[in-house]
Amino acid sequence: MKILLKNGNVVNVFTEEIVKADVLIEDSRIMGVGDYADYPVNEVIDLTGKYVIPGLIDGHVHIESTMLTPYEMAKLCLPHGTTAVVADPHEIANVCGVQGVEYMLQASENLPMQVYINLPSCVPATRFDESGAVLTAEKLRPLYAYSRVVGLAEMMNYPGVLFGDQDVHQKLKDARALNKPIDGHAPFLTGRDLDAYIAQGVQTDHECSNIEEAKEKLSKGQWIMVRQGTAARNLSALLPLFDPPYCYRAVLVTDDRHPADLIAEGHIDNVLRLAVRGGKAPVRAIRMATLQVAECFRIPFVGAVAPGYSADIVVLEDLTDFKVTDVFSKGNHVVKNGKLVDFAPPKVEDALQNKVRSSFHVKTFTAEDFIVKKKGENCRVIGVLPGELITEERVLPVDFSKENGVDISRDILKIAVIERHNGTGHIGLGYVQGMGLKTGAIATSVSHDSHNIIAVGASAEDLAFAVNRVAKNGGNVVVKSGEVLAEMPLPIAGLMSEKEGERVAEENAKVRAAVHELGVPASLEPFMNTAFLSLSVIPSLKMTTLGLVRVETQELVPLFVNEK
Amino acid sequence: MKILLKNGNVVNVFTEEIVKADVLIEDSRIMGVGDYADYPVNEVIDLTGKYVIPGLIDGHVHIESTMLTPYEMAKLCLPHGTTAVVADPHEIANVCGVQGVEYMLQASENLPMQVYINLPSCVPATRFDESGAVLTAEKLRPLYAYSRVVGLAEMMNYPGVLFGDQDVHQKLKDARALNKPIDGHAPFLTGRDLDAYIAQGVQTDHECSNIEEAKEKLSKGQWIMVRQGTAARNLSALLPLFDPPYCYRAVLVTDDRHPADLIAEGHIDNVLRLAVRGGKAPVRAIRMATLQVAECFRIPFVGAVAPGYSADIVVLEDLTDFKVTDVFSKGNHVVKNGKLVDFAPPKVEDALQNKVRSSFHVKTFTAEDFIVKKKGENCRVIGVLPGELITEERVLPVDFSKENGVDISRDILKIAVIERHNGTGHIGLGYVQGMGLKTGAIATSVSHDSHNIIAVGASAEDLAFAVNRVAKNGGNVVVKSGEVLAEMPLPIAGLMSEKEGERVAEENAKVRAAVHELGVPASLEPFMNTAFLSLSVIPSLKMTTLGLVRVETQELVPLFVNEK
Repeated sequence: MKILLKNGNVVNVFTEEIVKADVLIEDSRIMGVGDYADYPVNEVIDLTGKYVIPGLIDGHVHIESTMLTPYEMAKLCLPHGTTAVVADPHEIANVCGVQGVEYMLQASENLPMQVYINLPSCVPATRFDESGAVLTAEKLRPLYAYSRVVGLAEMMNYPGVLFGDQDVHQKLKDARALNKPIDGHAPFLTGRDLDAYIAQGVQTDHECSNIEEAKEKLSKGQWIMVRQGTAARNLSALLPLFDPPYCYRAVLVTDDRHPADLIAEGHIDNVLRLAVRGGKAPVRAIRMATLQVAECFRIPFVGAVAPGYSADIVVLEDLTDFKVTDVFSKGNHVVKNGKLVDFAPPKVEDALQNKVRSSFHVKTFTAEDFIVKKKGENCRVIGVLPGELITEERVLPVDFSKENGVDISRDILKIAVIERHNGTGHIGLGYVQGMGLKTGAIATSVSHDSHNIIAVGASAEDLAFAVNRVAKNGGNVVVKSGEVLAEMPLPIAGLMSEKEGERVAEENAKVRAAVHELGVPASLEPFMNTAFLSLSVIPSLKMTTLGLVRVETQELVPLFVNEK
Repeated sequence: MKILLKNGNVVNVFTEEIVKADVLIEDSRIMGVGDYADYPVNEVIDLTGKYVIPGLIDGHVHIESTMLTPYEMAKLCLPHGTTAVVADPHEIANVCGVQGVEYMLQASENLPMQVYINLPSCVPATRFDESGAVLTAEKLRPLYAYSRVVGLAEMMNYPGVLFGDQDVHQKLKDARALNKPIDGHAPFLTGRDLDAYIAQGVQTDHECSNIEEAKEKLSKGQWIMVRQGTAARNLSALLPLFDPPYCYRAVLVTDDRHPADLIAEGHIDNVLRLAVRGGKAPVRAIRMATLQVAECFRIPFVGAVAPGYSADIVVLEDLTDFKVTDVFSKGNHVVKNGKLVDFAPPKVEDALQNKVRSSFHVKTFTAEDFIVKKKGENCRVIGVLPGELITEERVLPVDFSKENGVDISRDILKIAVIERHNGTGHIGLGYVQGMGLKTGAIATSVSHDSHNIIAVGASAEDLAFAVNRVAKNGGNVVVKSGEVLAEMPLPIAGLMSEKEGERVAEENAKVRAAVHELGVPASLEPFMNTAFLSLSVIPSLKMTTLGLVRVETQELVPLFVNEK
């Protein structure tokens, strides 16, 4: 099959020029760029006035954060020109281990959006995490045999790197021995510690939130991933990286992207748009989102409109709004005049389907399970700050005479983290301030990084009801007086839906809206906070299945200052 | 072993800045760059006022062209700051096949100048070449298992690529499947032919002699190798490639470098010097000769002064003359204050030593072997042009009444190409005009690409004498009336000496001088021409072991226009 894309303005990411040229596609590859007007082909597509760029690549994303299957994510991203992503299946790996990674591989096989996989390096994320799996170096090693596995994913455990943790170093050694790139994750690490971390071969960073940090890391050899996702939005702070020579060591990523944002704002095209609005050269920005991502991950023949390259091509109306009209993926015309062409979902073998669809191993809970039985006067309460992932450790008197310590007048609610992978029955139980619920409860199985069930509520009954509901279908629920106000089921590992992106975005919007029926003020987004309330790497006080963790000192602390 | 390089001006190839910093070396790697003044180390070297740059890398060189062993070449190059080369053992492979490649691997094992190998893709070079070996795809494949084999060397056979030669395509396919870069060699190829050639995965070109050619190839995705060697000197024509954005897809190479030039002018340091004299930014030029060469060949952790990188470091007095004072190779201090530290030659196993040292398989020749017995009136004579590799096909009357057709008055000499690999006894015999000998003969075993023995002379006796002499020790000889006027023995495959670079340069100078005793005017360099007189890819008329070849039509042509 030969297709000629005729007379477009072709963006050359090597010379950073825009040249009027024809592009000859033969089957899955580009075979020529130049004057091919008289060349015999099966199909000619006239692109006069349009722009032809390489398919966009997201250099670092967690597919699970879209709450969609790779198939459904691809359906949302392709119309925005994304033809490849480098995905870290960290979330599902925390739930389902090696089989989670294999599920993601099978569930993304032969998609028109190529899914490259980096192997999750930190499962579980911390020693306080009761995760569904422990991925040692030994368990990861065989996974490098998959052709789409390109490297080792973000090494968040920088203390483990710096202090010589044996398994951490084995993972790094394995990746280096196989010449596989190692992604980093080390916010604010600097100076000698940064040197020691990078010296182990950690070649990227996507956590830079200011330009000094980015320049230091870049100067030490790391590729800087300019991140503009749903949660973290670092683009404006990192705009200087779009200029030479920094731009030649920087790539564009989203990290986390909710379906509603994919629909409303787009994906990597959105990052390009913002960069151009920020005054940066479009062609150079495109280079950072195509050729250079491929180079960073040593993926040959991807990321350029040039002979021999994979025919991943995006046709745009312009280089300001980046409106996509057509997309080719490995030579297949997958978006035509802005409309996605149907394609079949990948087949996943039964064993893996069963594994990811039966990830809740818990008993049925009763209100009794959510009654704090310990006693004390001054209680350690997690202080939530609006719009922040950081929490405070507050010590407050708690009144047990009514509602087992819940005090709506002071916005003190109960929080529970329920181990759900191995049926241990472990429940971390305590109090949180600042979530704004006046009644009912919310619960979710999206709780970083182990994705146990986390619930916040005003009554033990509603906590039990919400948790039981989540344990059935996964996802997010909002309940009140034994009734479900809204829910977004995420049956795949408790993380992903099988539904279409639009439907998941709708459900998510309804869930977010429903919390306000519980009295939460419009200024708060309790699910955003909830998902991070058990992540014991972000300060200060967090709740885990084992109880409260003080992040700074990395120790479990009792609920009461003077526990009786 | 920890060494601190203190207080130097460190060239950062990522940010293109020069920063005053300490460099911490631990064993073979760089572990830190910054303020390490108080760090406990075994040795501190104060570099105040000096410049610290990554070790230089020659991205494309034929070690055989230095006529030195890798060991002796390293001894000449290290003091010029070269810590790595990407070598194509094309010449020795034409003589000794796979064992020639293995000899080069063993003879360069653990040198302080790291030798990466690209596998020779075109052995023999043409169908008229009676070479010592035929390297099929099948024979090359196992060689990729050597860790220092980084790719497939220059694919000169572009007709084979374009017209679908099966073995050529198998070689390309193998390299692509292993994710090994493929070097190109396609002078003046352009347009659709160039597209078709590059589309097979050919990712570099070192044959660009003008900027338009270079820009076209770069725009199609090739890395452009700016070549400045002994024979081809393209730097001044390609100076625009030292500017953005081209500089980020260009690297520096020498291709061929004679020992006298290595001694007098230097190696990659010479290319840097010329670029800076040409007005180009030194730091960017350094980037093109370090980090980018490593990236082009996907060699990780090489080419930068940064944490985790191999401690290949060059200390310079300045960034204009590039005077090297110290060199570190994998953390070893191999050049101290401009003086090379002794190191041992690599051990090569006996079987390979024997193979490369017994590469002449010929009988003893007599004058009779060099008598033209065919008869005719108008003879095809190779017309040599001063300073050119191109020859002309001249049809001239030849007078057989004296000296069997040699005619000093018209500068018509006899030329012979003697098959020397398989004892076939094939001798191509004919006439050449423009070499300038008035008497005697010259002969050499350096004759591209098969390296048969090639001789030019005024008498059949001296031709036989010269050829027999070459067959004994290899190399170049100049003889007159049965006496050796000068010789440079090259016993290793007829291509390389075992002597030191200085000695080989001296011998070579003597041989070049001696030709003038045969009456050759000072303006001619007959050995330069001789080495290419049997290479049937450069127009127009060439002599092979099978007789005359007309390059344009790729056919054997008879010596006489109307042969009787």
